[in-house]
Amino acid sequence: MNLDWQTITHVTKVDPAKPLPPDLGVLEGTDLVLVGGSDDVTERNTLAAIEQVNSQFPALPVLQEPYSATHVSTDTIENADFLSIPAVYNGDRDHFVGKHVDLFTEVGRKPDELLGTGVPIVGDLIASKGRDAISDLSSKLFGEGYVVQHLDSAAATMAGVRECYTPEQVAGAALATETFYGFPVFYIEYSGTYGGPVDVEAAAPYLSDTVLLYGGGIDSHEKAIEILEAGADAIVVGDCFHDDPDTYLETIPTTE
Amino acid sequence: MNLDWQTITHVTKVDPAKPLPPDLGVLEGTDLVLVGGSDDVTERNTLAAIEQVNSQFPALPVLQEPYSATHVSTDTIENADFLSIPAVYNGDRDHFVGKHVDLFTEVGRKPDELLGTGVPIVGDLIASKGRDAISDLSSKLFGEGYVVQHLDSAAATMAGVRECYTPEQVAGAALATETFYGFPVFYIEYSGTYGGPVDVEAAAPYLSDTVLLYGGGIDSHEKAIEILEAGADAIVVGDCFHDDPDTYLETIPTTE
Repeated sequence: MNLDWQTITHVTKVDPAKPLPPDLGVLEGTDLVLVGGSDDVTERNTLAAIEQVNSQFPALPVLQEPYSATHVSTDTIENADFLSIPAVYNGDRDHFVGKHVDLFTEVGRKPDELLGTGVPIVGDLIASKGRDAISDLSSKLFGEGYVVQHLDSAAATMAGVRECYTPEQVAGAALATETFYGFPVFYIEYSGTYGGPVDVEAAAPYLSDTVLLYGGGIDSHEKAIEILEAGADAIVVGDCFHDDPDTYLETIPTTE
Repeated sequence: MNLDWQTITHVTKVDPAKPLPPDLGVLEGTDLVLVGGSDDVTERNTLAAIEQVNSQFPALPVLQEPYSATHVSTDTIENADFLSIPAVYNGDRDHFVGKHVDLFTEVGRKPDELLGTGVPIVGDLIASKGRDAISDLSSKLFGEGYVVQHLDSAAATMAGVRECYTPEQVAGAALATETFYGFPVFYIEYSGTYGGPVDVEAAAPYLSDTVLLYGGGIDSHEKAIEILEAGADAIVVGDCFHDDPDTYLETIPTTE
Protein backbone atom coordinates (compact mmCIF):
# COMPACT_ATOMS: atom_id res chain seq x y z
CA MET A 1 0.00 0.00 0.00
CA ASN A 2 1.40 3.36 -0.99
CA LEU A 3 -1.16 5.65 0.58
CA ASP A 4 0.80 8.43 2.29
CA TRP A 5 -1.02 8.71 5.61
CA GLN A 6 1.41 11.38 6.82
CA THR A 7 -0.41 13.90 4.65
CA ILE A 8 -3.91 12.83 5.63
CA THR A 9 -5.78 14.39 8.55
CA HIS A 10 -9.25 14.79 7.02
CA VAL A 11 -11.12 11.97 5.30
CA THR A 12 -14.47 12.43 3.59
CA LYS A 13 -16.79 9.44 3.65
CA VAL A 14 -19.04 9.44 0.61
CA ASP A 15 -22.18 7.30 0.75
CA PRO A 16 -22.90 6.32 -2.86
CA ALA A 17 -26.62 5.98 -2.14
CA LYS A 18 -26.95 9.61 -1.08
CA PRO A 19 -26.97 12.62 -3.41
CA LEU A 20 -23.67 14.47 -3.63
CA PRO A 21 -23.68 18.12 -2.59
CA PRO A 22 -24.53 20.58 -5.42
CA ASP A 23 -20.95 21.87 -5.47
CA LEU A 24 -18.44 19.03 -5.27
CA GLY A 25 -15.78 21.72 -4.94
CA VAL A 26 -16.17 21.48 -1.16
CA LEU A 27 -13.82 18.50 -1.39
CA GLU A 28 -10.96 20.89 -2.13
CA GLY A 29 -9.61 20.76 1.42
CA THR A 30 -10.01 17.09 2.22
CA ASP A 31 -7.11 14.63 1.99
CA LEU A 32 -8.78 11.33 1.10
CA VAL A 33 -12.18 10.20 -0.10
CA LEU A 34 -13.57 6.97 1.31
CA VAL A 35 -16.48 5.55 -0.69
CA GLY A 36 -18.79 3.10 1.04
CA GLY A 37 -22.11 2.53 2.76
CA SER A 38 -24.76 -0.07 3.43
CA ASP A 39 -28.40 0.80 2.64
CA ASP A 40 -29.16 1.00 -1.09
CA VAL A 41 -25.50 0.92 -2.07
CA THR A 42 -24.76 -0.90 -5.34
CA GLU A 43 -21.76 -1.48 -7.53
CA ARG A 44 -23.28 0.99 -9.98
CA ASN A 45 -23.75 3.94 -7.63
CA THR A 46 -20.38 3.18 -6.02
CA LEU A 47 -18.68 3.39 -9.39
CA ALA A 48 -20.57 6.61 -10.23
CA ALA A 49 -19.43 8.24 -6.98
CA ILE A 50 -15.80 7.20 -7.55
CA GLU A 51 -15.87 8.51 -11.12
CA GLN A 52 -17.39 11.85 -10.11
CA VAL A 53 -14.69 12.44 -7.53
CA ASN A 54 -11.96 11.33 -9.94
CA SER A 55 -13.15 13.61 -12.73
CA GLN A 56 -13.22 16.73 -10.58
CA PHE A 57 -10.22 15.92 -8.35
CA PRO A 58 -7.93 13.58 -10.26
CA ALA A 59 -5.13 13.89 -7.69
CA LEU A 60 -7.31 13.16 -4.65
CA PRO A 61 -6.86 9.54 -3.49
CA VAL A 62 -10.03 7.46 -3.42
CA LEU A 63 -10.45 4.44 -1.17
CA GLN A 64 -13.34 2.03 -1.62
CA GLU A 65 -14.54 0.41 1.61
CA PRO A 66 -17.11 -2.14 0.44
CA TYR A 67 -19.76 -3.44 2.83
CA SER A 68 -20.42 -6.38 0.52
CA ALA A 69 -18.61 -8.14 -2.29
CA THR A 70 -21.48 -7.11 -4.58
CA HIS A 71 -20.27 -3.49 -4.34
CA VAL A 72 -16.99 -4.40 -5.99
CA SER A 73 -16.13 -5.07 -9.62
CA THR A 74 -13.15 -4.76 -11.91
CA ASP A 75 -14.41 -1.24 -12.70
CA THR A 76 -14.53 -0.09 -9.09
CA ILE A 77 -11.13 -1.63 -8.41
CA GLU A 78 -9.60 0.02 -11.43
CA ASN A 79 -11.10 3.41 -10.67
CA ALA A 80 -10.45 3.48 -6.93
CA ASP A 81 -6.87 3.86 -5.77
CA PHE A 82 -7.27 1.52 -2.81
CA LEU A 83 -9.62 -1.07 -1.41
CA SER A 84 -9.97 -1.54 2.33
CA ILE A 85 -11.66 -4.39 4.15
CA PRO A 86 -12.68 -3.98 7.78
CA ALA A 87 -11.96 -6.67 10.35
CA VAL A 88 -14.30 -5.90 13.24
CA TYR A 89 -12.76 -6.76 16.60
CA ASN A 90 -16.03 -6.61 18.51
CA GLY A 91 -18.09 -8.18 15.72
CA ASP A 92 -18.88 -11.82 15.08
CA ARG A 93 -16.44 -14.43 13.77
CA ASP A 94 -17.54 -13.89 10.18
CA HIS A 95 -16.55 -10.23 10.26
CA PHE A 96 -13.09 -10.77 11.60
CA VAL A 97 -11.98 -13.96 9.95
CA GLY A 98 -14.75 -16.02 8.31
CA LYS A 99 -15.66 -13.82 5.37
CA HIS A 100 -12.05 -12.86 4.84
CA VAL A 101 -10.89 -16.43 4.40
CA ASP A 102 -13.86 -17.02 2.08
CA LEU A 103 -12.80 -14.03 0.02
CA PHE A 104 -9.19 -15.08 -0.23
CA THR A 105 -10.22 -18.63 -0.98
CA GLU A 106 -12.13 -17.28 -3.97
CA VAL A 107 -9.19 -15.11 -4.96
CA GLY A 108 -6.90 -18.09 -4.85
CA ARG A 109 -9.02 -20.32 -7.04
CA LYS A 110 -8.01 -20.95 -10.60
CA PRO A 111 -9.24 -18.36 -13.08
CA ASP A 112 -11.18 -20.77 -15.24
CA GLU A 113 -13.09 -22.08 -12.26
CA LEU A 114 -14.09 -18.58 -11.35
CA LEU A 115 -16.03 -17.52 -14.39
CA GLY A 116 -19.60 -17.04 -13.39
CA THR A 117 -19.09 -17.28 -9.65
CA GLY A 118 -21.15 -15.00 -7.47
CA VAL A 119 -18.20 -13.09 -6.13
CA PRO A 120 -17.63 -10.20 -8.51
CA ILE A 121 -14.52 -8.96 -6.78
CA VAL A 122 -12.90 -12.16 -7.70
CA GLY A 123 -14.66 -13.62 -10.67
CA ASP A 124 -14.52 -10.51 -12.81
CA LEU A 125 -11.11 -9.49 -11.71
CA ILE A 126 -9.42 -12.81 -12.23
CA ALA A 127 -11.30 -13.52 -15.43
CA SER A 128 -10.04 -10.25 -16.86
CA LYS A 129 -6.47 -10.36 -15.69
CA GLY A 130 -5.60 -13.92 -14.84
CA ARG A 131 -3.38 -14.88 -11.98
CA ASP A 132 -1.45 -11.63 -12.03
CA ALA A 133 -4.62 -10.10 -10.67
CA ILE A 134 -3.85 -11.60 -7.30
CA SER A 135 -0.77 -9.48 -6.83
CA ASP A 136 -2.54 -6.46 -8.33
CA LEU A 137 -5.30 -6.87 -5.83
CA SER A 138 -2.89 -7.39 -2.96
CA SER A 139 -1.14 -4.14 -3.71
CA LYS A 140 -4.40 -2.18 -3.56
CA LEU A 141 -6.07 -4.02 -0.73
CA PHE A 142 -5.44 -3.55 2.96
CA GLY A 143 -7.18 -4.41 6.21
CA GLU A 144 -8.59 -2.07 8.79
CA GLY A 145 -8.80 -3.17 12.40
CA TYR A 146 -12.26 -1.87 13.28
CA VAL A 147 -14.13 -1.20 16.48
CA VAL A 148 -17.80 -0.30 16.10
CA GLN A 149 -18.90 1.71 19.12
CA HIS A 150 -22.51 2.58 18.32
CA LEU A 151 -24.81 -0.40 18.75
CA ASP A 152 -27.80 1.26 17.14
CA SER A 153 -26.18 1.56 13.71
CA ALA A 154 -26.30 -0.34 10.44
CA ALA A 155 -22.57 -1.03 10.78
CA ALA A 156 -23.05 -2.72 14.15
CA THR A 157 -25.98 -4.82 12.95
CA MET A 158 -24.17 -5.87 9.81
CA ALA A 159 -20.98 -6.89 11.62
CA GLY A 160 -22.74 -8.73 14.44
CA VAL A 161 -21.55 -6.32 17.11
CA ARG A 162 -23.28 -7.11 20.40
CA GLU A 163 -21.45 -4.81 22.74
CA CYS A 164 -19.25 -1.79 22.61
CA TYR A 165 -15.73 -2.02 23.94
CA THR A 166 -14.63 -0.22 27.09
CA PRO A 167 -11.76 2.23 26.56
CA GLU A 168 -9.42 -0.42 27.99
CA GLN A 169 -10.61 -2.93 25.42
CA VAL A 170 -10.20 -0.34 22.68
CA ALA A 171 -6.62 0.09 23.85
CA GLY A 172 -6.18 -3.69 23.78
CA ALA A 173 -7.51 -3.91 20.24
CA ALA A 174 -5.19 -1.07 19.23
CA LEU A 175 -2.20 -2.84 20.76
CA ALA A 176 -3.21 -6.09 19.06
CA THR A 177 -3.38 -4.24 15.74
CA GLU A 178 0.04 -2.71 16.25
CA THR A 179 1.88 -5.79 17.46
CA PHE A 180 -0.04 -8.89 16.39
CA TYR A 181 -2.33 -8.38 13.40
CA GLY A 182 -0.71 -6.46 10.59
CA PHE A 183 -3.45 -4.01 9.68
CA PRO A 184 -2.04 -0.61 8.72
CA VAL A 185 -5.16 1.17 10.03
CA PHE A 186 -7.08 1.10 13.32
CA TYR A 187 -10.52 2.63 12.95
CA ILE A 188 -12.80 3.72 15.81
CA GLU A 189 -16.28 4.00 14.31
CA TYR A 190 -19.11 5.76 16.16
CA SER A 191 -21.24 5.66 13.04
CA GLY A 192 -23.61 8.63 13.14
CA THR A 193 -23.03 9.69 16.73
CA TYR A 194 -20.23 11.63 18.42
CA GLY A 195 -18.22 9.44 20.78
CA GLY A 196 -15.87 12.09 22.12
CA PRO A 197 -12.13 11.72 22.59
CA VAL A 198 -12.04 8.96 25.24
CA ASP A 199 -11.47 5.94 22.97
CA VAL A 200 -8.98 7.83 20.82
CA GLU A 201 -7.03 8.82 23.93
CA ALA A 202 -7.03 5.19 25.05
CA ALA A 203 -5.81 3.81 21.71
CA ALA A 204 -3.30 6.43 20.60
CA PRO A 205 -0.45 5.59 23.01
CA TYR A 206 -0.24 2.04 21.61
CA LEU A 207 -0.09 2.95 17.93
CA SER A 208 3.15 3.83 16.27
CA ASP A 209 3.20 2.15 12.83
CA THR A 210 -0.60 2.00 12.69
CA VAL A 211 -2.76 4.89 11.49
CA LEU A 212 -5.56 5.84 13.90
CA LEU A 213 -8.86 6.93 12.32
CA TYR A 214 -11.95 8.16 14.12
CA GLY A 215 -15.37 8.51 12.49
CA GLY A 216 -18.77 9.45 13.84
CA GLY A 217 -20.74 12.61 14.50
CA ILE A 218 -18.09 15.18 13.70
CA ASP A 219 -20.07 18.28 12.77
CA SER A 220 -18.01 21.21 14.00
CA HIS A 221 -14.51 22.57 14.01
CA GLU A 222 -14.33 22.02 17.77
CA LYS A 223 -15.12 18.33 17.53
CA ALA A 224 -12.65 17.86 14.68
CA ILE A 225 -9.89 19.47 16.72
CA GLU A 226 -10.85 17.61 19.89
CA ILE A 227 -10.43 14.25 18.15
CA LEU A 228 -7.19 15.19 16.43
CA GLU A 229 -5.73 16.56 19.67
CA ALA A 230 -6.71 13.33 21.43
CA GLY A 231 -4.34 11.51 19.08
CA ALA A 232 -6.23 10.51 15.93
CA ASP A 233 -4.14 10.70 12.78
CA ALA A 234 -7.24 11.63 10.81
CA ILE A 235 -10.95 12.20 11.25
CA VAL A 236 -13.58 10.72 8.96
CA VAL A 237 -16.48 13.03 8.16
CA GLY A 238 -19.53 11.70 6.38
CA ASP A 239 -23.09 12.79 7.15
CA CYS A 240 -22.66 16.56 6.91
CA PHE A 241 -20.81 16.23 3.62
CA HIS A 242 -24.10 15.14 2.11
CA ASP A 243 -26.50 17.13 4.29
CA ASP A 244 -24.84 20.40 5.19
CA PRO A 245 -21.81 21.51 3.16
CA ASP A 246 -21.20 24.60 5.33
CA THR A 247 -20.89 22.49 8.45
CA TYR A 248 -18.74 20.02 6.52
CA LEU A 249 -16.31 22.77 5.57
CA GLU A 250 -15.90 23.68 9.24
CA THR A 251 -14.61 20.18 9.97
CA ILE A 252 -11.61 20.60 7.67
CA PRO A 253 -8.82 21.67 10.01
CA THR A 254 -6.82 23.61 7.43
CA THR A 255 -9.75 25.69 6.17
CA GLU A 256 -10.88 26.98 9.53
CA MET B 1 11.10 -10.61 15.47
CA ASN B 2 14.66 -11.52 14.60
CA LEU B 3 14.29 -15.25 14.16
CA ASP B 4 16.18 -16.14 10.99
CA TRP B 5 13.77 -18.51 9.28
CA GLN B 6 16.07 -18.86 6.28
CA THR B 7 18.25 -21.18 8.30
CA ILE B 8 15.42 -23.25 9.74
CA THR B 9 14.11 -26.38 8.03
CA HIS B 10 13.70 -28.67 11.03
CA VAL B 11 11.81 -27.71 14.17
CA THR B 12 11.57 -29.94 17.24
CA LYS B 13 8.41 -29.66 19.27
CA VAL B 14 9.05 -30.43 22.91
CA ASP B 15 6.07 -31.31 25.08
CA PRO B 16 7.01 -30.20 28.60
CA ALA B 17 4.73 -32.83 30.13
CA LYS B 18 6.59 -35.71 28.51
CA PRO B 19 10.00 -37.05 29.57
CA LEU B 20 12.89 -35.85 27.44
CA PRO B 21 14.92 -38.51 25.65
CA PRO B 22 17.81 -39.93 27.67
CA ASP B 23 20.36 -38.24 25.43
CA LEU B 24 19.35 -34.65 24.65
CA GLY B 25 22.28 -34.60 22.21
CA VAL B 26 19.86 -35.74 19.49
CA LEU B 27 18.91 -32.07 19.19
CA GLU B 28 22.27 -31.40 17.57
CA GLY B 29 20.86 -31.30 14.05
CA THR B 30 17.61 -29.41 14.63
CA ASP B 31 17.30 -25.69 13.88
CA LEU B 32 14.69 -24.51 16.38
CA VAL B 33 13.03 -25.88 19.50
CA LEU B 34 9.36 -25.14 20.02
CA VAL B 35 8.13 -25.75 23.58
CA GLY B 36 4.41 -26.24 24.13
CA GLY B 37 1.60 -28.69 24.71
CA SER B 38 -1.77 -29.07 26.33
CA ASP B 39 -2.33 -31.99 28.72
CA ASP B 40 -0.50 -31.67 32.04
CA VAL B 41 1.61 -28.76 30.85
CA THR B 42 2.42 -26.17 33.51
CA GLU B 43 4.52 -23.07 33.77
CA ARG B 44 6.92 -25.09 35.88
CA ASN B 45 7.56 -27.97 33.48
CA THR B 46 7.63 -25.52 30.56
CA LEU B 47 10.37 -23.54 32.25
CA ALA B 48 12.26 -26.74 33.09
CA ALA B 49 12.17 -27.86 29.44
CA ILE B 50 13.34 -24.47 28.19
CA GLU B 51 16.19 -24.41 30.72
CA GLN B 52 17.35 -27.93 29.86
CA VAL B 53 17.57 -27.09 26.16
CA ASN B 54 19.29 -23.79 26.90
CA SER B 55 21.89 -25.37 29.13
CA GLN B 56 22.92 -28.02 26.62
CA PHE B 57 22.47 -25.97 23.43
CA PRO B 58 22.86 -22.30 24.33
CA ALA B 59 22.92 -21.22 20.67
CA LEU B 60 19.77 -23.10 19.64
CA PRO B 61 16.77 -20.74 19.45
CA VAL B 62 13.83 -21.66 21.69
CA LEU B 63 10.28 -20.61 20.95
CA GLN B 64 7.54 -20.97 23.54
CA GLU B 65 4.09 -21.64 22.08
CA PRO B 66 1.78 -21.48 25.08
CA TYR B 67 -1.63 -23.16 24.99
CA SER B 68 -2.76 -21.11 27.96
CA ALA B 69 -1.68 -17.91 29.67
CA THR B 70 -0.97 -19.99 32.77
CA HIS B 71 2.00 -21.56 30.96
CA VAL B 72 3.73 -18.20 30.73
CA SER B 73 5.61 -16.18 33.30
CA THR B 74 8.40 -13.64 33.41
CA ASP B 75 10.76 -16.59 33.80
CA THR B 76 9.56 -18.41 30.67
CA ILE B 77 9.62 -15.18 28.69
CA GLU B 78 13.12 -14.35 29.82
CA ASN B 79 14.44 -17.83 29.12
CA ALA B 80 12.75 -18.42 25.78
CA ASP B 81 13.98 -16.45 22.81
CA PHE B 82 10.51 -15.99 21.30
CA LEU B 83 6.85 -16.37 22.18
CA SER B 84 4.32 -17.31 19.53
CA ILE B 85 0.55 -17.16 19.79
CA PRO B 86 -1.60 -19.14 17.36
CA ALA B 87 -4.60 -17.56 15.64
CA VAL B 88 -6.66 -20.51 14.43
CA TYR B 89 -8.43 -19.77 11.14
CA ASN B 90 -10.80 -22.70 11.39
CA GLY B 91 -11.32 -22.37 15.14
CA ASP B 92 -13.91 -20.40 17.06
CA ARG B 93 -13.97 -16.62 17.44
CA ASP B 94 -12.12 -16.79 20.76
CA HIS B 95 -9.13 -18.49 19.18
CA PHE B 96 -8.67 -16.04 16.37
CA VAL B 97 -9.56 -12.71 17.92
CA GLY B 98 -11.36 -12.92 21.28
CA LYS B 99 -8.61 -14.18 23.53
CA HIS B 100 -6.02 -12.11 21.72
CA VAL B 101 -7.81 -8.85 22.39
CA ASP B 102 -8.28 -9.94 26.00
CA LEU B 103 -4.57 -10.59 26.25
CA PHE B 104 -3.57 -7.26 24.76
CA THR B 105 -6.15 -5.48 26.89
CA GLU B 106 -4.39 -6.93 29.93
CA VAL B 107 -1.02 -5.98 28.52
CA GLY B 108 -2.18 -2.43 28.00
CA ARG B 109 -3.54 -1.93 31.50
CA LYS B 110 -1.59 0.11 33.96
CA PRO B 111 1.03 -1.82 35.88
CA ASP B 112 -0.40 -1.08 39.32
CA GLU B 113 -3.79 -2.41 38.30
CA LEU B 114 -2.18 -5.62 37.14
CA LEU B 115 -0.66 -6.89 40.34
CA GLY B 116 -2.46 -10.01 41.34
CA THR B 117 -4.43 -10.50 38.14
CA GLY B 118 -4.85 -14.01 36.91
CA VAL B 119 -2.90 -13.46 33.71
CA PRO B 120 0.70 -14.23 34.59
CA ILE B 121 2.08 -13.30 31.20
CA VAL B 122 1.00 -9.80 31.91
CA GLY B 123 0.80 -9.35 35.62
CA ASP B 124 4.26 -10.66 36.40
CA LEU B 125 5.88 -9.16 33.38
CA ILE B 126 4.51 -5.69 33.77
CA ALA B 127 4.87 -5.73 37.54
CA SER B 128 8.54 -6.52 37.12
CA LYS B 129 9.39 -4.20 34.30
CA GLY B 130 6.74 -1.51 34.07
CA ARG B 131 5.50 -0.09 30.85
CA ASP B 132 8.72 -0.80 28.98
CA ALA B 133 7.69 -4.42 29.22
CA ILE B 134 5.11 -3.82 26.54
CA SER B 135 7.72 -3.14 23.90
CA ASP B 136 9.93 -5.93 25.25
CA LEU B 137 7.05 -8.32 24.90
CA SER B 138 6.17 -7.05 21.44
CA SER B 139 9.67 -7.72 20.19
CA LYS B 140 9.55 -11.34 21.34
CA LEU B 141 5.94 -12.11 20.51
CA PHE B 142 4.54 -12.98 17.11
CA GLY B 143 1.38 -14.49 15.71
CA GLU B 144 1.01 -17.72 13.81
CA GLY B 145 -1.84 -18.14 11.34
CA TYR B 146 -2.92 -21.67 12.19
CA VAL B 147 -5.02 -24.31 10.49
CA VAL B 148 -5.79 -27.40 12.57
CA GLN B 149 -6.50 -30.30 10.22
CA HIS B 150 -7.03 -33.20 12.59
CA LEU B 151 -10.41 -33.03 14.32
CA ASP B 152 -9.65 -35.81 16.77
CA SER B 153 -6.86 -33.94 18.53
CA ALA B 154 -6.49 -31.91 21.70
CA ALA B 155 -5.51 -28.90 19.59
CA ALA B 156 -8.78 -29.05 17.63
CA THR B 157 -10.90 -29.44 20.74
CA MET B 158 -9.15 -26.63 22.53
CA ALA B 159 -9.44 -24.18 19.63
CA GLY B 160 -13.07 -24.99 18.84
CA VAL B 161 -12.29 -26.44 15.43
CA ARG B 162 -15.42 -28.07 13.99
CA GLU B 163 -14.25 -28.87 10.50
CA CYS B 164 -11.04 -29.23 8.59
CA TYR B 165 -10.38 -26.92 5.67
CA THR B 166 -10.32 -28.14 2.08
CA PRO B 167 -7.01 -27.55 0.27
CA GLU B 168 -8.65 -24.54 -1.42
CA GLN B 169 -9.56 -23.07 1.94
CA VAL B 170 -6.05 -23.74 3.20
CA ALA B 171 -4.80 -21.78 0.19
CA GLY B 172 -7.25 -18.97 1.03
CA ALA B 173 -6.07 -18.85 4.63
CA ALA B 174 -2.47 -18.77 3.39
CA LEU B 175 -3.23 -15.90 1.02
CA ALA B 176 -5.08 -14.05 3.80
CA THR B 177 -2.03 -14.48 6.04
CA GLU B 178 0.31 -13.18 3.35
CA THR B 179 -1.73 -10.19 2.21
CA PHE B 180 -4.20 -9.26 4.94
CA TYR B 181 -3.22 -10.42 8.43
CA GLY B 182 0.40 -9.75 9.24
CA PHE B 183 1.42 -13.05 10.80
CA PRO B 184 4.99 -14.01 9.89
CA VAL B 185 4.16 -17.73 10.08
CA PHE B 186 1.46 -19.95 8.53
CA TYR B 187 1.23 -23.28 10.31
CA ILE B 188 -0.56 -26.38 8.98
CA GLU B 189 -1.08 -28.63 12.00
CA TYR B 190 -2.09 -32.28 11.59
CA SER B 191 -1.41 -32.90 15.27
CA GLY B 192 -0.40 -36.54 15.66
CA THR B 193 -1.35 -37.80 12.22
CA TYR B 194 0.36 -37.50 8.85
CA GLY B 195 -1.61 -35.29 6.46
CA GLY B 196 0.58 -35.70 3.39
CA PRO B 197 1.73 -32.93 1.07
CA VAL B 198 -1.65 -31.77 -0.32
CA ASP B 199 -2.30 -28.80 1.98
CA VAL B 200 1.32 -27.69 1.82
CA GLU B 201 1.20 -27.78 -1.99
CA ALA B 202 -2.00 -25.71 -1.89
CA ALA B 203 -0.64 -23.05 0.44
CA ALA B 204 2.95 -22.67 -0.73
CA PRO B 205 2.30 -20.74 -3.98
CA TYR B 206 0.64 -17.92 -2.02
CA LEU B 207 3.35 -17.42 0.56
CA SER B 208 6.33 -15.23 -0.12
CA ASP B 209 7.02 -13.19 3.03
CA THR B 210 5.33 -15.75 5.26
CA VAL B 211 7.07 -18.85 6.61
CA LEU B 212 5.20 -22.11 5.98
CA LEU B 213 5.37 -24.72 8.73
CA TYR B 214 3.90 -28.21 8.67
CA GLY B 215 3.51 -30.41 11.72
CA GLY B 216 1.93 -33.83 12.25
CA GLY B 217 2.96 -37.45 11.96
CA ILE B 218 6.41 -37.02 10.45
CA ASP B 219 8.23 -40.20 11.45
CA SER B 220 10.56 -40.96 8.55
CA HIS B 221 13.10 -39.37 6.26
CA GLU B 222 10.72 -39.88 3.32
CA LYS B 223 7.87 -37.97 4.95
CA ALA B 224 10.19 -35.15 5.99
CA ILE B 225 11.46 -34.79 2.43
CA GLU B 226 7.97 -35.10 0.94
CA ILE B 227 6.69 -32.17 2.99
CA LEU B 228 9.75 -30.02 2.33
CA GLU B 229 9.60 -30.73 -1.39
CA ALA B 230 5.92 -29.81 -1.37
CA GLY B 231 6.94 -26.30 -0.33
CA ALA B 232 7.12 -26.15 3.46
CA ASP B 233 9.90 -23.94 4.78
CA ALA B 234 10.24 -26.21 7.78
CA ILE B 235 8.79 -29.35 9.31
CA VAL B 236 7.83 -29.63 12.95
CA VAL B 237 8.61 -32.99 14.54
CA GLY B 238 7.26 -33.80 17.98
CA ASP B 239 6.08 -37.24 19.02
CA CYS B 240 9.06 -39.31 17.95
CA PHE B 241 11.45 -36.90 19.65
CA HIS B 242 10.03 -38.13 22.94
CA ASP B 243 9.20 -41.70 21.99
CA ASP B 244 11.76 -42.90 19.49
CA PRO B 245 15.01 -40.93 19.15
CA ASP B 246 16.29 -43.08 16.28
CA THR B 247 13.23 -42.33 14.18
CA TYR B 248 13.48 -38.68 15.21
CA LEU B 249 17.04 -38.49 13.89
CA GLU B 250 15.86 -39.78 10.52
CA THR B 251 13.54 -36.77 10.16
CA ILE B 252 16.42 -34.32 10.24
CA PRO B 253 17.13 -33.65 6.57
CA THR B 254 20.80 -32.81 6.97
CA THR B 255 21.66 -35.89 8.99
CA GLU B 256 20.29 -38.41 6.53
